[in-house]
Amino acid sequence: MKLTLVKVGGGIVENADSLNSLLDKFARIDGLKVLVHGGGRSATRIAEQLGLPQQMIAGRRVTDAETLRVVTMVYAGLVNKNIVAQLQARGVNALGLTGADMNVIQSHRRAPKNVRMEDGTTQLVDYGFVGDIDQVNAELLADLIAKGVVPVISPIGHDTQGSLLNTNADTIAAEVAKALSKVFEVTLVFCFEKKGVLRDAEDDDSVIPSITQAEFPTLVEQGIVSGGMLPKLENSFSAIQAGVHEVVITQANAIDNPKAGTHLC
Amino acid sequence: MKLTLVKVGGGIVENADSLNSLLDKFARIDGLKVLVHGGGRSATRIAEQLGLPQQMIAGRRVTDAETLRVVTMVYAGLVNKNIVAQLQARGVNALGLTGADMNVIQSHRRAPKNVRMEDGTTQLVDYGFVGDIDQVNAELLADLIAKGVVPVISPIGHDTQGSLLNTNADTIAAEVAKALSKVFEVTLVFCFEKKGVLRDAEDDDSVIPSITQAEFPTLVEQGIVSGGMLPKLENSFSAIQAGVHEVVITQANAIDNPKAGTHLC
Repeated sequence: MKLTLVKVGGGIVENADSLNSLLDKFARIDGLKVLVHGGGRSATRIAEQLGLPQQMIAGRRVTDAETLRVVTMVYAGLVNKNIVAQLQARGVNALGLTGADMNVIQSHRRAPKNVRMEDGTTQLVDYGFVGDIDQVNAELLADLIAKGVVPVISPIGHDTQGSLLNTNADTIAAEVAKALSKVFEVTLVFCFEKKGVLRDAEDDDSVIPSITQAEFPTLVEQGIVSGGMLPKLENSFSAIQAGVHEVVITQANAIDNPKAGTHLC
Repeated sequence: MKLTLVKVGGGIVENADSLNSLLDKFARIDGLKVLVHGGGRSATRIAEQLGLPQQMIAGRRVTDAETLRVVTMVYAGLVNKNIVAQLQARGVNALGLTGADMNVIQSHRRAPKNVRMEDGTTQLVDYGFVGDIDQVNAELLADLIAKGVVPVISPIGHDTQGSLLNTNADTIAAEVAKALSKVFEVTLVFCFEKKGVLRDAEDDDSVIPSITQAEFPTLVEQGIVSGGMLPKLENSFSAIQAGVHEVVITQANAIDNPKAGTHLC
């Protein structure tokens, strides 16, 4: 059976209008589906309201114990449950989850590691309660999906020792997609600001419709794939090698159009 | 199959030590189980930190749109997911839920109603986004429970139109217990500050070990059951009439002792 797993970032789900539009389109996707979401901007805003200034290093949040409480509230509570309620209103039988629920995502706390800073120097960074994924246990999840339940997953894992862990939503999407590929034919959809991978960064309509694993190195050499897109595509092809049928990079407003975006296979 | 549904209030789950002790004991309960929790004190504290003074009328929270966001964060995020992670660490395959998840608890927003105030006057009160339960859909829940999953339910329902609703945790516990009684032999355990229903309010050891429906009116006439205990027992007997096998009123530190407390049947 086919399953579509959509990953959408915080920018879309934290604005009422763009969230409504996203959920309308998500509800229209045929067949089995899963949604993985972010929520970082709300977390930052609420943390600051609570007097907890947030520290980002190389684009990632340093998550001390108090910040973990905030991201748990915001991702797993506020953002997740509002999406669930609004999908229910659209006839989608959503179930909001973190990685701790049914032990779906087992992780470990990331050890301090050397991070390349924007100024080019390298620094040893302890990101705190941030998780790297060890294992996805998708059996119960797959049973529920086959019964018509639509999991909505927030970017929180756990270490199986009682601690929740702030976890990258792209990584969760890729790892859950891999695990569900044992049971379903999975299309993993990453929502992106642009319409897809562009041949010409200046031309929003120069979307490359498909990239095979064989073509990928050439696009890197030609400089067409670079910057933040490079790890995104590397992770996508790694998911495909691990059994994911197809990865699509597209805009949030095109997730119900199976032909839109860049298709990796 | 036997199932134990434990309802525990915010006072226990919001303190790290009493929560640890509760979860140790909950993990030791044999067989199938469900936990329903509160979280009101944390919600009040975080709302006040966010500059939202809370209004309680006759012991119930007035839930405007901003307060609904806070209770959603606190109940469904912070409190619920920490319980889930800590049960996972104890080998209990917990799944945290609101009533919106899998459409488990369908509710409607409570219409403004006349409430008797502490000063004896009556006042028309709009509690805002507060839910009264219409229906519990327990089929998928029962399937999961039979597979060893332990639902952990936060006191949030939904109106099926996209809005979450703040809902009384005792009511959720009773309604979920009734719905699960179609499939399981359900014991509903209400955690209470005292060891049970006391024959003499001044003597903490005067617990009445059991009360039948036939004996209940006499205890009311004698004034042994009064005040806040009266609606609690009325709701308990109504749950029994609706199919719940037994209701137990006991202390949180005795939930793993099947003989403790007052047993209603």
